[in-house]
Amino acid sequence: MNEFLEGRCWQRPPISIARALQATPLQLMKALIFDTFGTVVDWRTSLIEDCTRFGNQRGLHVDWVGLVDDWRAEYKPSMDRVRTGKEPWRTLDQLHRASLEQLVTNRNIQGLTSGDLDYLVTGWHRLRPWPDAVPGLSRLRSKFIVGPLSNGNVALLVNLAKFAGLPWDVVFGTDLWQHYKPDSETYLGACRLLGLNPPEVMMVAAHNYDLHAASQLGLRTAFIPRPAEYGPNQSTDLKPEGSWDIVATDIVDLARQLA
Amino acid sequence: MNEFLEGRCWQRPPISIARALQATPLQLMKALIFDTFGTVVDWRTSLIEDCTRFGNQRGLHVDWVGLVDDWRAEYKPSMDRVRTGKEPWRTLDQLHRASLEQLVTNRNIQGLTSGDLDYLVTGWHRLRPWPDAVPGLSRLRSKFIVGPLSNGNVALLVNLAKFAGLPWDVVFGTDLWQHYKPDSETYLGACRLLGLNPPEVMMVAAHNYDLHAASQLGLRTAFIPRPAEYGPNQSTDLKPEGSWDIVATDIVDLARQLA
Repeated sequence: MNEFLEGRCWQRPPISIARALQATPLQLMKALIFDTFGTVVDWRTSLIEDCTRFGNQRGLHVDWVGLVDDWRAEYKPSMDRVRTGKEPWRTLDQLHRASLEQLVTNRNIQGLTSGDLDYLVTGWHRLRPWPDAVPGLSRLRSKFIVGPLSNGNVALLVNLAKFAGLPWDVVFGTDLWQHYKPDSETYLGACRLLGLNPPEVMMVAAHNYDLHAASQLGLRTAFIPRPAEYGPNQSTDLKPEGSWDIVATDIVDLARQLA
Repeated sequence: MNEFLEGRCWQRPPISIARALQATPLQLMKALIFDTFGTVVDWRTSLIEDCTRFGNQRGLHVDWVGLVDDWRAEYKPSMDRVRTGKEPWRTLDQLHRASLEQLVTNRNIQGLTSGDLDYLVTGWHRLRPWPDAVPGLSRLRSKFIVGPLSNGNVALLVNLAKFAGLPWDVVFGTDLWQHYKPDSETYLGACRLLGLNPPEVMMVAAHNYDLHAASQLGLRTAFIPRPAEYGPNQSTDLKPEGSWDIVATDIVDLARQLA
């Protein structure tokens, strides 16, 4: 126990403790927490298929690829409005619903009921894992605690784990703290709930911004590039942009490196 | 979505919604949340063995059976001091530590270091499941979301799940809300994080007080007697003391009744 875990310092561990624990070798690491959309699951291909199947069943002629890309483009701005206090707390399910409603209006898509919108929003609960995700997580789980630290809410993440067969030990969603990444409350909140100091926890992500925030707070970091996450024209996060502890080709490779 | 899930009413769902949803058949239930100490794991036998093994290794002559029973007897009073505001929030790990220190003093037990006390406190992370727990939970998990709703903290419950092989989908510890059962914040907090209305969630417990509180808030209830939880002289919770939705002989029987 120390000041961080006893809750006497919330913002971050005291520098002295953080520095001392930075020396902890990777072998002493106890838990890995995973960004989920993009890092563990292939949201874009899955959603395009889910929406297209729905549209075909309903005889709707919609540019689903464009809609899904625009929908995801609203992800960061919608969270940032909450993060900066311009809007009150809303879960990612609620933000997804609001941005979909706006897109449907902007694109003048006709014939969708409120129930249809509900169904499309839960498409984010029906995403397929990247092929390496389940075998890699299963291998890591035999040695470490594994869980998501995603901007999704707990319900979304639990439903997604059931759908995709993700073998989590624990589920961290941002509604636990009513803060979105990269707010420090999320990373430090997960560490505290695990009863671990930040250097005992590794953040795994396909996005450099996420690792930058985690690293600043003393967590270990692993980068896994997902160059097809945003489709064929992806231009960001193609390579590591920081001194991350591990760079792995996928989650199976991460497990191999930590074995 | 409704007022409860949108967070506009925190204390409990509006009576009208609660009454309407009370009519939901058991088949529409989505999740089961489990009391853990006593209901899922056999804390008493496990702790007595864990402490005795430790004592033998250290050559200590201590009445471990008496110490474990006295330790558990401090469980409710220590949480009640937090629940009534007499003491600030502390996790169950912290309460276990404080009550163990007091017992060691009262019983004049010599030769225990601070590290020894740390080790003994984590004995609560090393409890064996009742024989029906893992097969029963595995079966229930194929149809429902399953998770603990325990007075333990998240770290304790995650470590315990790893040790005992409990196949949870999600882990609810009381540090998520800084409230102990039977405070309503715990039961309703779990429902809200699951994105479910109380009648879609079943509380499973070996303790009638727990089911009474859950039932008052609109959750479904299942009672599983554990007549040996407190040892050979147990006199409480030997039978259901309310109109619980299900009474099952164990968790496998519960899975059979809900199949």
